[in-house]
Amino acid sequence: MDDRPQTVVNRPSSIVNPMTQKHNIILQPSGSRGQVEEGMSVRSAARELGVEIESICAENATCGKCMVLIEEGRFEKYNIDSRRENVSPVSTEEAAYFARRPKLLKDKGWEVGQVRLSCQCKIRGDVLINVPEESRGNKQIVRKSATERAIEVKPSVRKYLVTMSPPTLERPIADWERLAKGLETSMALVRGTEEKLPRWYELNIDYQCLRSLSATLREAKWNVTVTVWQDKEVIEVQAGYVEDSYGAAVDIGSTTVALYLCNLRTGEMLAAESEMNPQIVYGEDVMSRIQYAIENKDGLEKLHKAIISTLNKLLKQAAKEAKIKAEEILEMVLVGNSTMHHVLLNLHPKDLGLAPFVPAIHRSMDIKARELGLHINPSGNIHVLPTIASFVGADTSAMIVAEEPHKQDENWLLIDVGTNAELILGNRKRLVCTSTPTGPALEGAHVEYGMRAAPGAMERIQIDETTLEPKYKVIGVTGWNTDHAEFKGQVKGICGSAIIDGVAELFRAGIVDSRGKFKKDLNSKRIRQGESGWEYVIAWAEETSIGRDIPMTQQDVRQIQLAKAALFTAARTLLNRSGLESPDKIILAGGFGSYIDKEKAMLIGLIPDCELDRVYAVGNAAGDGARIALLNIEKRNEIDGVTRKVERFELPTDPEFQNQFMLATSFPHMSEPFPHIAHLIPNRKADPMAKNFMSK
Amino acid sequence: MDDRPQTVVNRPSSIVNPMTQKHNIILQPSGSRGQVEEGMSVRSAARELGVEIESICAENATCGKCMVLIEEGRFEKYNIDSRRENVSPVSTEEAAYFARRPKLLKDKGWEVGQVRLSCQCKIRGDVLINVPEESRGNKQIVRKSATERAIEVKPSVRKYLVTMSPPTLERPIADWERLAKGLETSMALVRGTEEKLPRWYELNIDYQCLRSLSATLREAKWNVTVTVWQDKEVIEVQAGYVEDSYGAAVDIGSTTVALYLCNLRTGEMLAAESEMNPQIVYGEDVMSRIQYAIENKDGLEKLHKAIISTLNKLLKQAAKEAKIKAEEILEMVLVGNSTMHHVLLNLHPKDLGLAPFVPAIHRSMDIKARELGLHINPSGNIHVLPTIASFVGADTSAMIVAEEPHKQDENWLLIDVGTNAELILGNRKRLVCTSTPTGPALEGAHVEYGMRAAPGAMERIQIDETTLEPKYKVIGVTGWNTDHAEFKGQVKGICGSAIIDGVAELFRAGIVDSRGKFKKDLNSKRIRQGESGWEYVIAWAEETSIGRDIPMTQQDVRQIQLAKAALFTAARTLLNRSGLESPDKIILAGGFGSYIDKEKAMLIGLIPDCELDRVYAVGNAAGDGARIALLNIEKRNEIDGVTRKVERFELPTDPEFQNQFMLATSFPHMSEPFPHIAHLIPNRKADPMAKNFMSK
Repeated sequence: MDDRPQTVVNRPSSIVNPMTQKHNIILQPSGSRGQVEEGMSVRSAARELGVEIESICAENATCGKCMVLIEEGRFEKYNIDSRRENVSPVSTEEAAYFARRPKLLKDKGWEVGQVRLSCQCKIRGDVLINVPEESRGNKQIVRKSATERAIEVKPSVRKYLVTMSPPTLERPIADWERLAKGLETSMALVRGTEEKLPRWYELNIDYQCLRSLSATLREAKWNVTVTVWQDKEVIEVQAGYVEDSYGAAVDIGSTTVALYLCNLRTGEMLAAESEMNPQIVYGEDVMSRIQYAIENKDGLEKLHKAIISTLNKLLKQAAKEAKIKAEEILEMVLVGNSTMHHVLLNLHPKDLGLAPFVPAIHRSMDIKARELGLHINPSGNIHVLPTIASFVGADTSAMIVAEEPHKQDENWLLIDVGTNAELILGNRKRLVCTSTPTGPALEGAHVEYGMRAAPGAMERIQIDETTLEPKYKVIGVTGWNTDHAEFKGQVKGICGSAIIDGVAELFRAGIVDSRGKFKKDLNSKRIRQGESGWEYVIAWAEETSIGRDIPMTQQDVRQIQLAKAALFTAARTLLNRSGLESPDKIILAGGFGSYIDKEKAMLIGLIPDCELDRVYAVGNAAGDGARIALLNIEKRNEIDGVTRKVERFELPTDPEFQNQFMLATSFPHMSEPFPHIAHLIPNRKADPMAKNFMSK
Repeated sequence: MDDRPQTVVNRPSSIVNPMTQKHNIILQPSGSRGQVEEGMSVRSAARELGVEIESICAENATCGKCMVLIEEGRFEKYNIDSRRENVSPVSTEEAAYFARRPKLLKDKGWEVGQVRLSCQCKIRGDVLINVPEESRGNKQIVRKSATERAIEVKPSVRKYLVTMSPPTLERPIADWERLAKGLETSMALVRGTEEKLPRWYELNIDYQCLRSLSATLREAKWNVTVTVWQDKEVIEVQAGYVEDSYGAAVDIGSTTVALYLCNLRTGEMLAAESEMNPQIVYGEDVMSRIQYAIENKDGLEKLHKAIISTLNKLLKQAAKEAKIKAEEILEMVLVGNSTMHHVLLNLHPKDLGLAPFVPAIHRSMDIKARELGLHINPSGNIHVLPTIASFVGADTSAMIVAEEPHKQDENWLLIDVGTNAELILGNRKRLVCTSTPTGPALEGAHVEYGMRAAPGAMERIQIDETTLEPKYKVIGVTGWNTDHAEFKGQVKGICGSAIIDGVAELFRAGIVDSRGKFKKDLNSKRIRQGESGWEYVIAWAEETSIGRDIPMTQQDVRQIQLAKAALFTAARTLLNRSGLESPDKIILAGGFGSYIDKEKAMLIGLIPDCELDRVYAVGNAAGDGARIALLNIEKRNEIDGVTRKVERFELPTDPEFQNQFMLATSFPHMSEPFPHIAHLIPNRKADPMAKNFMSK
């Protein structure tokens, strides 16, 4: 109740009561329109018509986030006459705000009166309002992948400007309660009263943040920007008006750690940093690191400290790059496979490595940065996405966040290939998942001349089926080797994508049969008996920098057969459990998927049959998912629910597994039709083992 | 749905369907009675009739907390025939339980069949059941004070026995989720399904507790006792069946720190330890400690570390005394005045010492023990009660918890006297509070021969109004000094209670007048001009161990006048603000209140007039309140609500303050009637200053 004395005025007699009169409002560019009451602020009017306009100063005319343009003219389409006089005159506060920003007005070509602060400007008549991009609430970032879509920026932390009256001897209420009451008011003004917001006594303040509260409030003369986490806990109080908050999304891979620093207000990515995972010195793959932690008393401690110090290094680099302080980073979202997840959280990974392979926890967690020793704001939170199964970790959860199979009508198959492959299949009704060890062959390891994708590595191979002569592309060299008059001393080895190419081409050209065996009766000097069995020479010694012929061997082909059989069997198991013949779409996540030739991958039976133009490579979906979860709190709640419902299948316990695995070692497969690449399969009839398939 | 194959049986034809038949049940000693359905367990039946029976093993027949006695015979009063055959036969599990406890049966004189586990024993007919004391739920402790009352034991932590099936390759669900699902079942069984309990996925686990979860579950063979805080967070997982939890309540006084170690299941106090507050070396009173923190860069850090290390010392001593480990202590509740509160929390107390005297926070807080470096279980919580005003701290909140003025119809006045006095006045409708500095005189400091209550201190003084000769009692000596033939070399000084006695007796005997001035014309060698003015010798040099006469001086009387005027004015202000002439009851908290003679306190006008037998001394109400809040979570929620509504009055801002203070310096008061001690006031009419009072 306002009990201040009021001036009594003689109201002019009129049929229309001006206090309840309504006006026509059009908002551009959305085109939202409707009638609102006389005297309402433009910002409130917009909200009533479903258009959010930014504001963080609790409508104090100080933040300027709510600028709008009052367009003049007769708009026939809407049948209104829009005039600047149809809104309240420019207030002293607005005039002061714009007077301090001549450059902004000049750059934009706006004049005061045309541009207004929508929290101050009141509706007096019909008006058409243009809401410029920067003033629009619900900011979005665009995710480019299999499905290009917009992601709303709804971070877990929000900032509010709170202005308090200082305490007096008459009202010596405590600093926190004074702030909380001011914050309650600010939140309601910024967010709108229709939203259910906590009452001041339901709000909390982080203990470490409380420790500096009294000094900050006094230094700031009771005018502060308050950062609230999840509408419930104050995690930062800064003097004066502060606009931006920052967050970091991190994908901890077994090999590489990638960190993305984002502005939590705009969604903009400010820096992307990556480093080798320092744990690599304790073991190449997750199993050897688990082994290390089991065998050494301080093994876990060493692994944990290594990743924490690398994260702190990346945070420092990213903050420097973005020209902010690391303490301005108020939240981190982390993902990684189950082992990386456990080591990050200093949870012993022992039981991930021993049957029955059980993680310590599935659910997502929020842990204070200071508890983990991560050098962001000590009151900030570390959010770790949920794990799904022993070998289906938080990185797979992030992939689901990025690709959203749980929102599709079609059945999508998501595959993240590494030393271990994780697979998710399904749609909005049901999701199933599994994982399978694929071995390091697909990444170029355990292949005789395999190497990482680096200068000197073959990345593409083709074999002429008549001459049986190859041509190849090398990283760092333009075009094919055959495009060069003299091609010498350039090749070092074969990287993952070329290994798939090579095996597929050996099969397509009829050099190996569908069972993966070299044919010994072909007329080519490239096909020969090497030290460890039959092989096909792709590069002669003089073409290499290592002075030796580079062949693909029988052993290499076998390695790929085992890897692709494991992957295919996992996919087939999920398809069978879902009663599906094939997926509607295949999404390949991870670096590996980005470089392989999808036709050749299908030809060797690495992935199930599917329309080729419905096979997508989406790059680091785990990193993208982490970034999306950082920028949108709703996605976190969503993935928590989704992962609780995903059905897990453990392959070794599937009675069909061994049988399916045997059938899947053939190229492309012993009993699957593969209609989409059938034209590439050589003399199918000639292979006696293919009769199962032919009788289908 | 149970889809196991079922055996089809021919049910004997009968008019009564035994599955829906009801039986008469009587529960003793409560006398609760009613009808319950055939086949229900005795424990469930009791709950239905409103009688809680203990259980923590989720009805697994392992904890034995739910033992009951089936009484045989015809109970005319209830008109039932109670027979052991009217309950299901002793099960194998029950027989096994009792077989392991022959001593219990022998000690109690019970036989198996008479004594039963109520979770196992099913109702088959009418029966009278005796619930022994130890099996009754909702245990209570009795608070002895102004209001003797029972306090239900409802701690914030509860233990549940959870038995899980181990993970398998087919169901490799994570450890936490496996535990949480088991816990959901256990909680529902122990607490009853009618209570709203969280679903498993709403439960959390403390991060540090999670770190050892996997190892504990395996070591315990999936059979663990889980401690849950506030029905939402798991804070401890112990192998096997563990019955008890422990907690500590602490009152941090400026001078003394007292710690009470309690069993959180039974409410029993197992140890009480106290130490001097080590901060005393940095300043005698709170103001000098605030000053120290302001003047020294590391001042707060030193004060904070000093109290933390003393608390850790007390915890260690108490745990040793109770024969438990300090890590078994799962919660602490701490109270103290606002300065002690701030220093404990490492919050700078600067603004408590500078106008307008504002604390950093009022609300109660829960902080992890590890965050404060307190050596209880690191996942345990430290609960700090709310502060009310700048000088009305968490100790006053605890006093309200202990005395419950907010539940009374009468108006109670609670006073905690120390260097500073806190006062609460009111009833269930309204509570008002204030505080006032009383100076150290009431505690024996700043009085020429004042000393702490210790051997050699006078604790009682009487003066014969005819002879003007005194007699006194000394701590460590039986009876009055005059009871001893030769009384020599015994006295060292005067403690607080004797100072009040002495001043009151000087006034009653007419040696000082109502304005506190010595009368110089009296015939006694004890009344003389001393070094600093007039004085009255209580003990001659030969009676003392210090070899000097011990007098009470004009200066001492003045000190007491100032202290009592401050206290009385504070009380009068609250009474006036509440429209009251006098309180219905006065409660004196703190050590001081326990030793003073209430009649004499009223005679000098230290406390307002009130019926003398309605003035209570309740000892360490703050410590009691801390203990109650430790044992009953509902009391914490209650005090949070109460303190938000208490009205605070700051005396210096009260326009009447100076005037009231002047009137209150007289004995007993210049303008108050004091009918209950009027007969003790000498020659009132003779005092010209008393005319205001006389005209009333």
